Amino acid sequence: MDMQPRGNGWWTAPAPSAGADYALLLDGGPSVPDPRSPWQPFGVHGPSRAVDHAAFPWTDRHWQAPPLESAIVYELHVGTFTPEGTFEAAVRHIPHLRDLGITHVELMPVGEFPGDWNWGYDGVDIYAPHHAYGGPDGLKRLVDALHASGIAAILDVVYNHLGPLGNYLARFGPYFTSRFHTPWGDAVNLSESGCAQVRRFFVDNALMWLRDYHFDGLRLDAVHAMVDPSATHFLEELANSVEQLQRETGRHLCLIAESDLNDPRLLRSAESGGYGLDAQWSDDFHHALHTLLTGESSGYYTDFGSIGQLAKAITNGYIYDGCYSRYRGRPHGRPLGSVSHSRLLGYLQSHDQVGNRAAGERISHLCSLDLVKIGAALVMTAPFIPMLFQGEEWGATTPFQYFTNHPDPDLGRAVSEGRQREFSDFGWPAADVPDPQDPETFLRSKLNWAEIAGAQHTELLDWYRALIAFRRQTPALRSAPAEVSFDEAGRYLLMRRGDFVIAVNFSKAWRGVPFDSGAQVLDASKPGIETLDKELRLPPESAAILRAPR
Amino acid sequence: MDMQPRGNGWWTAPAPSAGADYALLLDGGPSVPDPRSPWQPFGVHGPSRAVDHAAFPWTDRHWQAPPLESAIVYELHVGTFTPEGTFEAAVRHIPHLRDLGITHVELMPVGEFPGDWNWGYDGVDIYAPHHAYGGPDGLKRLVDALHASGIAAILDVVYNHLGPLGNYLARFGPYFTSRFHTPWGDAVNLSESGCAQVRRFFVDNALMWLRDYHFDGLRLDAVHAMVDPSATHFLEELANSVEQLQRETGRHLCLIAESDLNDPRLLRSAESGGYGLDAQWSDDFHHALHTLLTGESSGYYTDFGSIGQLAKAITNGYIYDGCYSRYRGRPHGRPLGSVSHSRLLGYLQSHDQVGNRAAGERISHLCSLDLVKIGAALVMTAPFIPMLFQGEEWGATTPFQYFTNHPDPDLGRAVSEGRQREFSDFGWPAADVPDPQDPETFLRSKLNWAEIAGAQHTELLDWYRALIAFRRQTPALRSAPAEVSFDEAGRYLLMRRGDFVIAVNFSKAWRGVPFDSGAQVLDASKPGIETLDKELRLPPESAAILRAPR
Repeated sequence: MDMQPRGNGWWTAPAPSAGADYALLLDGGPSVPDPRSPWQPFGVHGPSRAVDHAAFPWTDRHWQAPPLESAIVYELHVGTFTPEGTFEAAVRHIPHLRDLGITHVELMPVGEFPGDWNWGYDGVDIYAPHHAYGGPDGLKRLVDALHASGIAAILDVVYNHLGPLGNYLARFGPYFTSRFHTPWGDAVNLSESGCAQVRRFFVDNALMWLRDYHFDGLRLDAVHAMVDPSATHFLEELANSVEQLQRETGRHLCLIAESDLNDPRLLRSAESGGYGLDAQWSDDFHHALHTLLTGESSGYYTDFGSIGQLAKAITNGYIYDGCYSRYRGRPHGRPLGSVSHSRLLGYLQSHDQVGNRAAGERISHLCSLDLVKIGAALVMTAPFIPMLFQGEEWGATTPFQYFTNHPDPDLGRAVSEGRQREFSDFGWPAADVPDPQDPETFLRSKLNWAEIAGAQHTELLDWYRALIAFRRQTPALRSAPAEVSFDEAGRYLLMRRGDFVIAVNFSKAWRGVPFDSGAQVLDASKPGIETLDKELRLPPESAAILRAPR
Repeated sequence: MDMQPRGNGWWTAPAPSAGADYALLLDGGPSVPDPRSPWQPFGVHGPSRAVDHAAFPWTDRHWQAPPLESAIVYELHVGTFTPEGTFEAAVRHIPHLRDLGITHVELMPVGEFPGDWNWGYDGVDIYAPHHAYGGPDGLKRLVDALHASGIAAILDVVYNHLGPLGNYLARFGPYFTSRFHTPWGDAVNLSESGCAQVRRFFVDNALMWLRDYHFDGLRLDAVHAMVDPSATHFLEELANSVEQLQRETGRHLCLIAESDLNDPRLLRSAESGGYGLDAQWSDDFHHALHTLLTGESSGYYTDFGSIGQLAKAITNGYIYDGCYSRYRGRPHGRPLGSVSHSRLLGYLQSHDQVGNRAAGERISHLCSLDLVKIGAALVMTAPFIPMLFQGEEWGATTPFQYFTNHPDPDLGRAVSEGRQREFSDFGWPAADVPDPQDPETFLRSKLNWAEIAGAQHTELLDWYRALIAFRRQTPALRSAPAEVSFDEAGRYLLMRRGDFVIAVNFSKAWRGVPFDSGAQVLDASKPGIETLDKELRLPPESAAILRAPR
């Protein structure tokens, strides 16, 4: 059947009936999938399958997501969260998340990518939940089940590039521009001729997930890689469209950016010249915390390492707010200004901070349980939205490594060799860098749920549960500004949030910390903390939560 | 003598004594000019000459520039403004400018460029006034003489690229980045590693012109070609630095952007998320007016042509404020919002609109004197800062063609052929496109001051003088919002500014225009206008200025 031109680059055809497979012929060429395909049951090169979104039996009619400022976010990769690696298998672990106190689950990208496993950032059919995960119905069942357990669902979406295989978009229009470069090649065309339809492609995708899959929000991958000098930035247009859907439906919807810009413009309102996003990931807090716990100082960690920086993150939000970054070779960022800290996400790890290491080590592989517990305490009591990465809560022993399953051998080899080359620059022998294309790399990255019962794991899990419960019960942790005092040489830090003080000793020795108020110890990462007259005595590598009204 | 590293990429050496010639040896290579050379007496490849800025005998101690909102700007190209083509020769014509009523002269770029003549946008030693124009002292004498005549001086500066010949900057540091493309190749590095020093290079240049040459403001060439995704845009940093100099000195300093973005962010304050520039050129108004007067519709004029668009420019500032541009193949711009129209420059022509035509025709070459007078009336009464291009005021018969004098034969040939190719796409025979490298192209672009005495020229000059005097005497033209009514088919337009109405008949026939108020004709572009009871009767192709209090 012929498609009909509708002007301005749009073509239409009668919708195929639900369940029907179809493909498109461009100028008589070989058939290609629909760029807006809702389902690719046979992978990125195969035909598309029509879906009737209205047919799904949703049970979440009265659902309303909790506000983002009170969120505890859990980042989850469907393929490795369970042995089965499917949406359906993930549903079975929702009780664990509910009991942990999670309010928002964030799924790593699910759009159809090449092969059967992938982090998700190689997606090319961004409207189609991956067939190996369980396709459209599987994803809807997962979101519906999360809602039934009182948990909101956020989806990670990738609008800054498309994957290297099965990306037919360029045949359909000017989706890319050579004017700007990204690490993945030509940038998505957000500002040149034909960009309105390209922007619509992504905005419609966002609205589709929120409307047809009942997602409560989106995490926008690497917005710094979207170069858009036009008068209305794509992110502002996207935020306006989501805001309109929110007004029409009365739902709480949110947009969370991954941003390497340290630019409050993302979060400011349009009236204040901003883009109006709700929140952003904040690597500064992560890096400051990570370097303190691990002592690492290579790569981007070279810019971090002092308790003073951690204190600045806690009090100012951004550490790099215009000051010089050695790693970047330039000043970076600007102050948050009137934008609240509670619009930054704070985390001890994320898929990136784990998986972009050569061997995919978690923080629990890199430092002692005591230090991990300190990190967790700070994440859960700092003035940011806390986020966990799957398995963090029990100190999973499984790594999260970089894995791909590119069906094209040349590309597969290029990815494997590129990964080795990347780390050989840092002195890693090739043999120590897991091969992304090796299925074992994927399999060993899967969580091992059986290990939770182990003593160390139980201890950590109990600590996370307690911290999350404390945060959820304590509005002051969300609303009160943080005051911090610290001793760089003594390696301790006190963070006051309203009537509460979090006391942390990073050192391997006992520390006496001057402390005026009378204080009641509510919880501690290890026993032994002493409250003397004008002093707290903290055991080595410990954190304590105190009630200490002024 | 060895230069000493001062860290962060800076190198210093004792300042050569004033008048001394010097050059730099990089890593023992051949000698190159100082990137911040204040004078290149032997051209772009030769040695630099030290200048003692403090030694100049300024006479403008009590000078203060008039505010930009009351400005009448005159764009001037030093090389073609006079037969001699020097700063000194320009001084002799200042009385003409003063008598015309000009408040601000804007010099096209003067930084050392390759060869002896050039528009100025091929400059490479951007701290050095061109040797053929008269070097540093000549420029200072011109600015001092302007000030002595009560005229402010603005300099056009080019920070988005450097010229193709004699550009040694890349040898000194990461001045360029391949991450972004511009029409001139790699973009200036405003956001990548090492950018702080690059940004400083340009900011210091701006401050140098304002401080050492007493310029009252700068016109920033093509800011849309500056791609800077960092949290503090280069333009904001530049505006902050100029603002600081303004606070320290109490002088009125201004920054005017040439911008193709239709983005009020340039003009909004930093508190409102803007860059804090003072004003910008507005091509929308120009294009709307130009197409109405000439009937042209090719190239970017395809987006214009209706009286409704001219009316929108007058009432809204931008015509393309988010609506679809056929020429660009995408939506363009956003509304000015709370930014005042009086921060846009309005003009009937500019060096670009004349010189970027194949044969460099002025508006007076393209339409009748009657229509030119209409154009002038609208420019001088619209809610923008009016600007003239040299010779416009008397309808100069000389063109302003694209000319270069590249001393490199290969580059010269490439520029000549590129120019022919550019216009052959629009159907121009190569023979009809003046050769940029032919000295005649430069010479025929020089103003012919002798022709002013001709009758038609005198008539137009008197009209400009009267309009400028009217504008300068009439604060309502600057402050009052404009109301416009028009008849697209009848081809007339009424623009009310406070108690005044400007009535324009674009058609070749008499037009009766409904008009309620009792009106007194203050001036008209041709005789014969009749004020009847409820009607104005306008002669063909005429404009009238009426006093018509409501």
